[in-house]
Formats: sequence, structure tokens, C-alpha cells
Amino acid sequence: MSTKAGFLRARRPEQKQQRYAAILDAARELALHDGVGAVSLADIAAEVGMHKSALLKYFETREEIFLRLAETEFGEWAAGALAALATAGPDPREVADALAGSVADRPLFCQLLLYTPLTLERNVSLDVVRVFKLAIKGSMEDVMPALQRALPALDADACFELFMMTGMVAAGLWQAAHPSPQVVALHAEDPGAAPYPDFRASLVRFVWTYLAGLLAR
Amino acid sequence: MSTKAGFLRARRPEQKQQRYAAILDAARELALHDGVGAVSLADIAAEVGMHKSALLKYFETREEIFLRLAETEFGEWAAGALAALATAGPDPREVADALAGSVADRPLFCQLLLYTPLTLERNVSLDVVRVFKLAIKGSMEDVMPALQRALPALDADACFELFMMTGMVAAGLWQAAHPSPQVVALHAEDPGAAPYPDFRASLVRFVWTYLAGLLAR
Repeated sequence: MSTKAGFLRARRPEQKQQRYAAILDAARELALHDGVGAVSLADIAAEVGMHKSALLKYFETREEIFLRLAETEFGEWAAGALAALATAGPDPREVADALAGSVADRPLFCQLLLYTPLTLERNVSLDVVRVFKLAIKGSMEDVMPALQRALPALDADACFELFMMTGMVAAGLWQAAHPSPQVVALHAEDPGAAPYPDFRASLVRFVWTYLAGLLAR
Repeated sequence: MSTKAGFLRARRPEQKQQRYAAILDAARELALHDGVGAVSLADIAAEVGMHKSALLKYFETREEIFLRLAETEFGEWAAGALAALATAGPDPREVADALAGSVADRPLFCQLLLYTPLTLERNVSLDVVRVFKLAIKGSMEDVMPALQRALPALDADACFELFMMTGMVAAGLWQAAHPSPQVVALHAEDPGAAPYPDFRASLVRFVWTYLAGLLAR
């Protein structure tokens, strides 16, 4: 990990804002490259060229950094989902494609859906969780009515279930599609092994199937 | 964490076997009480009354201990699923109840489904992963034909998808049903907040809905 040129001490508000954004950008890039679970606070500090102690003036913990990224990812996912849902339907398959595609387009979002309850909401203060939950609530209040307009046969509870299960399966499929080096090596030993499932195609097929089940219920 | 009476050095094979089992038992109890993610190698060593260095003569890493537990859990889940599937059907709802119930009955299994790809298969040797994968394959080869016999309208691929998605959603719902203390505190602040979803009821409803979608496909 190369250390970039260090920052001088930030004094003005716009300098502080710039540094705050640089920390988030460094964390995002490292997570996209190495996976969220592999990125430490020391990695982020090295990437952005700051000391860990200076970085902790901007964020409580490593987990706050990723929770802020999750907030941004949720907001950007919501904007993408709204745009895709605006032209999807009335065929439910089109709506399933739009919803699944809006998630599959965002690899960091898929990872953060997994880590949010697992670690991110655990290693931060109540205030940080409160701000995060309010932001998510806002994103959901944008998307849920659009999903219900596109799927008039489903009620609000069923639409929420569709979103929840899409998120859980996206998180699980992301893990399955990115196995450990040991699992990759084992897979290569067995010439008869089935190929890995394609993440996007598997998610699309899941959402379409589950939606068909909700419509049949 | 209280330290139990320490073991003397194990010399005979049956003593070694007893100690190996005691380590696994301690890890299982701690994980059921505190959650897999919260249990360190030091915690397990303290619980079983051994030094960490002695414990590492039995297992490569903390992750091997939990991967061995996952192997056992998979085998016990398979036995439970086989028994439940033997009397379920032909109503697909009965099969969904049997499958969902076999997973929901095993809280440690639900946690280990999440941690296996996330950390357990990463922090062990290729040989340990190989033994684990062979054991899982054996369990799956027991259960999949029984699932297909109970659901004759589905082909083998669809039965495998049903199992995979049940596992992913069980792992996600388990997280959602066991939120962090911060999330619990926030929830208590809002008198209008919806109650937490019931883990078992949510999993049963998911499996039934997804199975209906597979049958409609």
C-alpha cells in the first residue's frame, strides 16, 4: 500500500470538508479493490496520507467511515432504482429486472448491505446510527411508492418484503460469487465442478422468481 | 470470562480426542451465547482452560474451530431435514415448512452459513477447506434427493436454488433479528416503530413464497 503525499493540518472549514471527502474516497477505492472486510483503518490512513490519530478527528471508528459510505450508496441506489422503475412495467418481469439491476449495478452497496448489521452498526455511537437510519428511511420513502406503482397487485408490505429479500440475497450471492483463494484453488482441482454462478444473472432470476411467488400468494 | 480448571498435558490418543471435543464444545457454547463474530481464540482458550499456544496444537486458527462446528452443524441439519422431509408433502406448503423449520431450529447453523464464506474459508489452509467441502457435499447428496422426492414438480437445479436461497435468507434474517444495542436503543425511542420481524415466521413465509415462485416458473 503506497502512502500518498501527506496533508498539512486542515484549518479552514473547506479544507476540513475536503479532507473528510478524501478519507471516504480512499475507503471506497480500497473496499472496491480488496473487499470491505479486508480494509483496516491503517490502510485508509495510509491511502489518504494521514496519521490514524488525525483521521480519528473526522470519524469515530473505521466502521463510521463505512457506515457513511453505506448512507451514500443507499442514496445513489435509490436514485438509480427510481429512474429504472419509472419506465418499468406493467410486465412484472420488467420490474424485477429494474429492481435487481439497480442493486447489481452497485458492487459496494451489495457488500455494505452485509456489513451494516454485522459490524458497522455495532462499532459506532448511537448518534451515528441515528443519522444513518434517518437517511435510509428517506431513501426507502422515495423508492417504496415507486415500486408499488410499478406493481399495483402487491400491497406495501409485500413490496417491502421484495426489497428486503432482494438485499439479503444480493449480499449472500455477492459472497458466493467472490470465494476465498482456497475455495478457488479447490474448484480448479475438480474438472467436473459446476461453474460459479453469475452474480447478476442469479440475482435477476431470484427477484423474478420471488416476485412471481408474491404475486401468486 | 471465567477460566475453568486447566487440563494437564494430554498424552494418550483418547485424552487428545477428549480435549479436541472440549475445545469445540466451548466454542459452540460461547457462539450461541455471544454470537460467532464476538468469540475470539482467547475467549475459547479461557473457557476451556488451556493456553492459546496449546489450543493451536489442535486447530490451525480460530476459523478452523468454527469451520469444524459448521461441518457438524451441516451434518445435523441434514439429518433433521431428512427426517422432516420424509413425512412432508404432497402439499408444497408442508415441504416449505419442513425445510424452513429444519434451518430455523439451528441458530448456530444460521450464523455459520453467514461466516463460512465471509471469514471461515479464508483463514484456514487448503486442506481444511477440502475436508469441509467434502463433508458438505456428502450432506447435500443426502438431502437433495429427499427434497426432490417431496417436490416432484421441481427439477434438481430448482431444488438446489431453493436450498441456497433458504440459506442466504436465513443468514440475513438472523442478522436482522439480532440487531446491535444501538439499533435496539433507537427502536425503543420511536413508539411508532414496527415490531421486529419474527425470525422463524419470516423464514417460513419466505420459503413458502419463493417455492410458489419456483413452481410458477
